[in-house]
Amino acid sequence: MSLLVVGSIALDSVETPHGKVDDALGGSAVYCSVAASFFHPVQLVGVVGRDFPDQHVKLLESHDIDLSGLEVNEGETFRWSGRYSADLNHRDTLSVHLNVFGNFQPKVPDSYRESRFVFLANGAPMTQMSVLEQVERPEFVLADTMDLWIDTARDDLVELLRRVDGLVLNDEEAKQLTGESNLIRAGDQILEMGPKVVMIKKGEHGSFLFSPRMRFAIPAFPVDDVIDPTGAGDCFAGGLMGYLAGQGRWTNTELRKAMVYGTVVASCCVQGFSLDALRKTSREELDRRYREFIDFVTVEPSSTAS
Amino acid sequence: MSLLVVGSIALDSVETPHGKVDDALGGSAVYCSVAASFFHPVQLVGVVGRDFPDQHVKLLESHDIDLSGLEVNEGETFRWSGRYSADLNHRDTLSVHLNVFGNFQPKVPDSYRESRFVFLANGAPMTQMSVLEQVERPEFVLADTMDLWIDTARDDLVELLRRVDGLVLNDEEAKQLTGESNLIRAGDQILEMGPKVVMIKKGEHGSFLFSPRMRFAIPAFPVDDVIDPTGAGDCFAGGLMGYLAGQGRWTNTELRKAMVYGTVVASCCVQGFSLDALRKTSREELDRRYREFIDFVTVEPSSTAS
Repeated sequence: MSLLVVGSIALDSVETPHGKVDDALGGSAVYCSVAASFFHPVQLVGVVGRDFPDQHVKLLESHDIDLSGLEVNEGETFRWSGRYSADLNHRDTLSVHLNVFGNFQPKVPDSYRESRFVFLANGAPMTQMSVLEQVERPEFVLADTMDLWIDTARDDLVELLRRVDGLVLNDEEAKQLTGESNLIRAGDQILEMGPKVVMIKKGEHGSFLFSPRMRFAIPAFPVDDVIDPTGAGDCFAGGLMGYLAGQGRWTNTELRKAMVYGTVVASCCVQGFSLDALRKTSREELDRRYREFIDFVTVEPSSTAS
Repeated sequence: MSLLVVGSIALDSVETPHGKVDDALGGSAVYCSVAASFFHPVQLVGVVGRDFPDQHVKLLESHDIDLSGLEVNEGETFRWSGRYSADLNHRDTLSVHLNVFGNFQPKVPDSYRESRFVFLANGAPMTQMSVLEQVERPEFVLADTMDLWIDTARDDLVELLRRVDGLVLNDEEAKQLTGESNLIRAGDQILEMGPKVVMIKKGEHGSFLFSPRMRFAIPAFPVDDVIDPTGAGDCFAGGLMGYLAGQGRWTNTELRKAMVYGTVVASCCVQGFSLDALRKTSREELDRRYREFIDFVTVEPSSTAS
């Protein structure tokens, strides 16, 4: 009942009002895998160049992430650099060098093929679909996407949406995908495109779940010391998928709890650059934040103390 | 145990992608009073001109709103006009004519002086404070404010904050008042300025409550047919205050429920121009939406059916 994660592994250079880092460990598959690892073993598929530091490999291994699917190819690792605005609500991408990730053709090792939970991190929809052809009868497949693919590979994305169980994307992307300015209508329309569940991320404003059976929404976990928002969305998806894989099912009740676990892992992530804060947390700390969050959002506490 | 509401009464001309209205009933005290009236009798203090249509007076009376404090003065009623963007997230004020509201000196009738719950809708802080001097031992006083007063009457506003129990304002105003870009720090800082509870409205992203004893946040009630957002914030405050006045106390538990009632009244308000949708709703419909909202935000349902 393992969790398969496929996506980018990057060296990020990031500047925020709180400082900067150069060539720090990043990438969607990295954030997602480490986030998920607090809940369930992860099998990673990704590619790096020969320059990928051994310390990063050791970090991933220390989180019990299976690296049988990690390719090391000739060339350099994917690099991204960006700078955040003073209020951290906007970021400019300064440079993108796909390097070895540019020709990434995910190869799912035999030992991963029976993974029951699969997360297809942001990537070309055709590439995401190629993974689906290499896994046997997954129980739950969640895909992420971004504005680039909505713009340039819409037909492929529409095809992908017929073949996955869930889609996770942010509010702007949901509006872009559907042409709807109302988020509720956007979520409902994406459901009609195929997925059985749609999670919409709204950053500091929380997240929204749509399914034909229910709607569910939560605020973000309150954080008063955001250092670097990079990777928060991937940690949300990772925490969510790790929790679901750990439970082995994605009922309504488990989906609600999974959204909260995704939220609390993301709240840890943003309290440091790169993986700095995330790597120092623990399942105990995440469970503590989970309980704090329940109190934070509960309208009618079962004990009516006031 | 009545609820006193003091604020503006206006004739609004509003244009949204769904149509337009001219000289329609509006104003913070009107939206707030009608919203509150579903939960508790309201005593209104406000001013209109001789041109104020009798049908609007009848509408307010039909909601059991006590109009002993309604002044009718020589001149024209306050008029505001505005236009919303295609996605309804931005609005331009096209014109403001304060008219009789420009010299508004609220006079609290003797029959209102023992009101236990008081809502000071958006207005000059000095004017809001003049109301406090006319009421005896209120149990809970909530004030609203706006960017104009933060800019032009900051000292008065700071003084007001020492004398009220609660402040309600939107997220941009909270950041402006404190100079903080992080909403959590902004809320905490406003608490230090005096109020025992701060409610921050985030429009379609929900609302946040800060008190020294707890933090609480909820999303907005999902509405897929927003016609006109005008008055939503006043309805939020009105529903909240009406519910609290009806309960006669503002414990943590009641504050949480009050936030939800404010949210569901606001969700009705935006489904029509002016008071069109709000006047057609009922306590039963609001209770139905309340229960729907509880299901919408509950992480761990007590019955674990899935």
